[in-house]
Amino acid sequence: MAAEMDGLATLVCGAFSSNAQRSKESGETIYRIPASRSYESYGQMFLAEQQLPQNQRMDFVVIATPNYLHYPVAIAALDAGFHVVCDKPVAFNVEEASALQSKVGECGLKFALTHNYTGYPMIREARALIQEGKLGTIRRVNCEYLQGWLAQPMQDNKQAEWRTDPERAGAAGCFGDIGSHAENLMSYVTGLKIEALCADTTTFVHGRKLEDDGNVLLRFAGGAKGMLSVSQIALGKENDLKLQVFGHRASIEWCQDDANSLIVRHAGAPMQVFRSGWAGTGAYSSAATRLPPGHPEGYLEAFAEVYKNFCNHLLGVVDSADYPSIAEGVRGMRFIESVVASAEKGAQWITLD
Amino acid sequence: MAAEMDGLATLVCGAFSSNAQRSKESGETIYRIPASRSYESYGQMFLAEQQLPQNQRMDFVVIATPNYLHYPVAIAALDAGFHVVCDKPVAFNVEEASALQSKVGECGLKFALTHNYTGYPMIREARALIQEGKLGTIRRVNCEYLQGWLAQPMQDNKQAEWRTDPERAGAAGCFGDIGSHAENLMSYVTGLKIEALCADTTTFVHGRKLEDDGNVLLRFAGGAKGMLSVSQIALGKENDLKLQVFGHRASIEWCQDDANSLIVRHAGAPMQVFRSGWAGTGAYSSAATRLPPGHPEGYLEAFAEVYKNFCNHLLGVVDSADYPSIAEGVRGMRFIESVVASAEKGAQWITLD
Amino acid sequence: MAAEMDGLATLVCGAFSSNAQRSKESGETIYRIPASRSYESYGQMFLAEQQLPQNQRMDFVVIATPNYLHYPVAIAALDAGFHVVCDKPVAFNVEEASALQSKVGECGLKFALTHNYTGYPMIREARALIQEGKLGTIRRVNCEYLQGWLAQPMQDNKQAEWRTDPERAGAAGCFGDIGSHAENLMSYVTGLKIEALCADTTTFVHGRKLEDDGNVLLRFAGGAKGMLSVSQIALGKENDLKLQVFGHRASIEWCQDDANSLIVRHAGAPMQVFRSGWAGTGAYSSAATRLPPGHPEGYLEAFAEVYKNFCNHLLGVVDSADYPSIAEGVRGMRFIESVVASAEKGAQWITLD
Amino acid sequence: MAAEMDGLATLVCGAFSSNAQRSKESGETIYRIPASRSYESYGQMFLAEQQLPQNQRMDFVVIATPNYLHYPVAIAALDAGFHVVCDKPVAFNVEEASALQSKVGECGLKFALTHNYTGYPMIREARALIQEGKLGTIRRVNCEYLQGWLAQPMQDNKQAEWRTDPERAGAAGCFGDIGSHAENLMSYVTGLKIEALCADTTTFVHGRKLEDDGNVLLRFAGGAKGMLSVSQIALGKENDLKLQVFGHRASIEWCQDDANSLIVRHAGAPMQVFRSGWAGTGAYSSAATRLPPGHPEGYLEAFAEVYKNFCNHLLGVVDSADYPSIAEGVRGMRFIESVVASAEKGAQWITLD
Repeated sequence: MAAEMDGLATLVCGAFSSNAQRSKESGETIYRIPASRSYESYGQMFLAEQQLPQNQRMDFVVIATPNYLHYPVAIAALDAGFHVVCDKPVAFNVEEASALQSKVGECGLKFALTHNYTGYPMIREARALIQEGKLGTIRRVNCEYLQGWLAQPMQDNKQAEWRTDPERAGAAGCFGDIGSHAENLMSYVTGLKIEALCADTTTFVHGRKLEDDGNVLLRFAGGAKGMLSVSQIALGKENDLKLQVFGHRASIEWCQDDANSLIVRHAGAPMQVFRSGWAGTGAYSSAATRLPPGHPEGYLEAFAEVYKNFCNHLLGVVDSADYPSIAEGVRGMRFIESVVASAEKGAQWITLD
Repeated sequence: MAAEMDGLATLVCGAFSSNAQRSKESGETIYRIPASRSYESYGQMFLAEQQLPQNQRMDFVVIATPNYLHYPVAIAALDAGFHVVCDKPVAFNVEEASALQSKVGECGLKFALTHNYTGYPMIREARALIQEGKLGTIRRVNCEYLQGWLAQPMQDNKQAEWRTDPERAGAAGCFGDIGSHAENLMSYVTGLKIEALCADTTTFVHGRKLEDDGNVLLRFAGGAKGMLSVSQIALGKENDLKLQVFGHRASIEWCQDDANSLIVRHAGAPMQVFRSGWAGTGAYSSAATRLPPGHPEGYLEAFAEVYKNFCNHLLGVVDSADYPSIAEGVRGMRFIESVVASAEKGAQWITLD
Repeated sequence: MAAEMDGLATLVCGAFSSNAQRSKESGETIYRIPASRSYESYGQMFLAEQQLPQNQRMDFVVIATPNYLHYPVAIAALDAGFHVVCDKPVAFNVEEASALQSKVGECGLKFALTHNYTGYPMIREARALIQEGKLGTIRRVNCEYLQGWLAQPMQDNKQAEWRTDPERAGAAGCFGDIGSHAENLMSYVTGLKIEALCADTTTFVHGRKLEDDGNVLLRFAGGAKGMLSVSQIALGKENDLKLQVFGHRASIEWCQDDANSLIVRHAGAPMQVFRSGWAGTGAYSSAATRLPPGHPEGYLEAFAEVYKNFCNHLLGVVDSADYPSIAEGVRGMRFIESVVASAEKGAQWITLD
Repeated sequence: MAAEMDGLATLVCGAFSSNAQRSKESGETIYRIPASRSYESYGQMFLAEQQLPQNQRMDFVVIATPNYLHYPVAIAALDAGFHVVCDKPVAFNVEEASALQSKVGECGLKFALTHNYTGYPMIREARALIQEGKLGTIRRVNCEYLQGWLAQPMQDNKQAEWRTDPERAGAAGCFGDIGSHAENLMSYVTGLKIEALCADTTTFVHGRKLEDDGNVLLRFAGGAKGMLSVSQIALGKENDLKLQVFGHRASIEWCQDDANSLIVRHAGAPMQVFRSGWAGTGAYSSAATRLPPGHPEGYLEAFAEVYKNFCNHLLGVVDSADYPSIAEGVRGMRFIESVVASAEKGAQWITLD
């Protein structure tokens, strides 16, 4: 839905299952794709699509698989000459992520990472305000990403299964799944680099192999401090992503549940609430707003922003990549691995180079 | 975006301007429609599309014109054998609306009216709770639909121009444009019939020909009372649609700005907040929820619900029409005309038969 | 608690019951008043207190009785030379209220009416903003005062009993009890005079003798329009007093449940939220703020404001009466009677002279 | 105001300044205390009051001085036979706090510590829900106490001066002033003991001698984890105290700015909002509620709860101490010292015995 929202992309083919028959059925019933273009493997798909005439074959591939497949599929796609939109985290570990970064650099193809939360207009407004210096020097960053859907053991839930399986998800549980979004959001909005962290993670649900909860102390280059809470056992929380950034001139507060508002506080004036599409918001956030003010936009529109900007880049409508890419992917993997390393040492400080 | 969201419909042709050249240009640049199917008039479009093979021609037409064109375009579409999705209010006056109702009844084609606010999951939850008797006998309904975008004279704004022009909008200004949505929402959620009303409307902006503000006392069949505030000069309000319904057992409160929440209050228990997709919501609202809880859905998803249910009806996936149709259109026009009639008499009570 | 909050007044005597023994007991156990100053009637109290030396006797009386006693007790107090703080509505009907106004005018004593909602800092800020012209010409006023505690018949509840008894409450039920507060709040904040109204009231609970719900269309001098919803059967609502005022330059929104915030909206700028005690608020509201920002103040502090300003006036600390007085009382009674008169005619327009 | 709110205590004397003349003036003009009972030192006060007849002298002393005076004044008061209500933190360091604890134990007098946030009805409701097992095993605690009033250097502000002066405030800045409240709130609500912590504190304002910001990782006995953010440089924040507690059955969320609401979330049911005084709240919170639901209570009422319960204990109305006392004071000092110790080591883990 997000990819097609702006009329810039259409799903034309796919490898929907490793079972050939099931892939064709899914393609037809769910996505209305002709059987001939529902493939049984990504390898087969890249091979077949390569052979179609330029104006008929797919332009880019979307990788929406469990984490361990991100790297091999992305490499194969790039090798086959297809641009890539890839789910986060970008790879299974930093090593893979770095190798992929080299590959992207060499091949000249485009690569987007679906850190969809960067697409919210008010997140973009926050970034712009900070870049313009409205907050002054940043001192403190508070970020929470709390979910509760894994508060109990989840049986027979495919999403839960692979996300809590180190073979498919990687070294981290909730920090790979949602902590990486939080890291990206903080970096995107503040522009600050994490220099060191101290992570205390926990696996609360008995028998689970990866952490489902954790708190992280953060130190940013330049002296700002931060704290991050990530959980998938925060019972009753839906998908609560919240960001607060405090500067020496002003501060901002945003939460996904009221995504079209951005609270801005100054020392000597009443609190302001910026609203998507309303007067006072800048060009950067306005470009990500599709509807008049008061017509609530949500998760899909934010996600669509990644695709829109990626497609416009592919099409040459814009010159630069206004979407998360492989550099963010490598940085994110390094963050995840640092959290895991810190936690394994009993929550000791880890320096990120 | 809303029509195509669920992959059930695709824009294949259109009459985008009465200027042939401009229609083709709009079709190509905005909608990526081949020039051959961008028509210069709806008449030409219906004629040409009729002549295409069944599996190539358009299945239904979407009428998104100023109000005065709804009726003639709808009649022409039905005459040409096309199903219709029409903007509200359904016609220029009750007479036209009734004629259209007869036509729809005779021709056997399907007709949907885009009262998109009925598509919000929590609005559907409210309707279900009331139908199940959870609120008991309804006593009071409070509805506000407040916008501020017409608080000043609007020059060179096409949307504002026709909406404030009696030749194109009809007998009512804000009550035709948004008051009709409010009436539909109250009726949809409560199932109550308005028996009488007393409307005090005002044109606050000098030179404007239609009312831009008004308050209405409502009396419903069965004894419930209501209050409706409608304005397009409520400066600073974006698109604030709010509904409260009070029964003798419980009450509900919903506002579009927090569309994924429904407040439910009981006398002897803590307040509840139902959330889209979360435990406790019923099948009726769940069917209108596309994303997991906490992934905000908004205006487009609600609007898409009208299209999704209409398409599924066309396709035979469902048997009944779970979308606003011509009956709601006639009722809405009667409401609008009654408001105008009451206001013209200096805000006297008008009985709706 | 409110009267004594600022250390300007102390309860020194009272007539707590018409039963002498019970009055003494209440005085001692609840209020820690010596038996000698717990009287069995207001007449006895005025007589006895008059005979005490000036510096020992009570300075003013607080009338907190059912409505039908306001007038006789107030007259007796003024006759005995005591200043008066009286509950609203000020009297049983307009006739009594006017007589009391004459009396107050003649006797030179001070009279305060406990419209406590005028004491909220953010209500005062709203009034100041409007007086300074920040909102421009006022066009629309929306006021809701919704409670649910009378949604069912109330047996053996003393508060409910007299409030729904025309012998003790007067001609109006919820409009006397809380509608009068709403009228006062609108008048206090906007400075506008109600010229005409149309009230549709209802008694929803079987057997109740006074209306427990109603909606009112309002026309103000100068052309502004308003709507007022008042209910005590709005099940689940606690004490929800909400005010919105829309001008041609800006608008304000306030609700008691978030009493320390005042939303201010402009056409060309982000929404502002004024906060009690925070930068940007004016002197008038600051004078009513007792605590640093973020230390929530509530109902008692607002109520205390009436007493504080009254006491400071008595003590000569301030020269003018910054509290509701007899003029507001007469205006309020006229409003209540007009609502009742309009409702009795089936919700016809009534002109207030 | 808080001490006198419930009519159980009256200010009868004081040492308002170390300058005798100024003490008398403050006593008279601000507190309406006769000059004879406005003392120039606490020593003089205790001596003089001791000599008054039992029924005329003060019953307990309230210590509202900078931190370094808490201990000597408290000891002197207890030696003189007066009960004590003392500001937090209870002493200058753990050593003093422990000595005071011994003293209180020996002398048989009563001692209250003004952790006023424990007086909010909804905080008490949260505590009761947890004690009743409604949340199940607690897994995660998130607490924020953010203020912004020290975001810039404060000149000529007496409150700021002593709070940032190690000679008068002690070893900690914001953790002594407000972090200690947060620790007390978490302990009071959850009943959990902090076993270890890791604190990263910062002094952001140049020239300040004590930390004005910090984040703390927490480990509780039994396996729960926690995160605490404390700041006085969180620009734009007023006095934002927020607590979230997540159990394996349910979770709660409370923030001071909406103090009369308590959000309760369960896995399989709609979210609930408990409200002060409304149905569903228990006896423990109801006892701390003074007004009907919807009549906002705030900071003063919560503070008054400490005095009310202390006075009722003194008066023998209740048998047990339902207020923070010296044990909480010692625990709080240990927390503060542990934070300082952890921070001094560069944010290493510290075990609390």
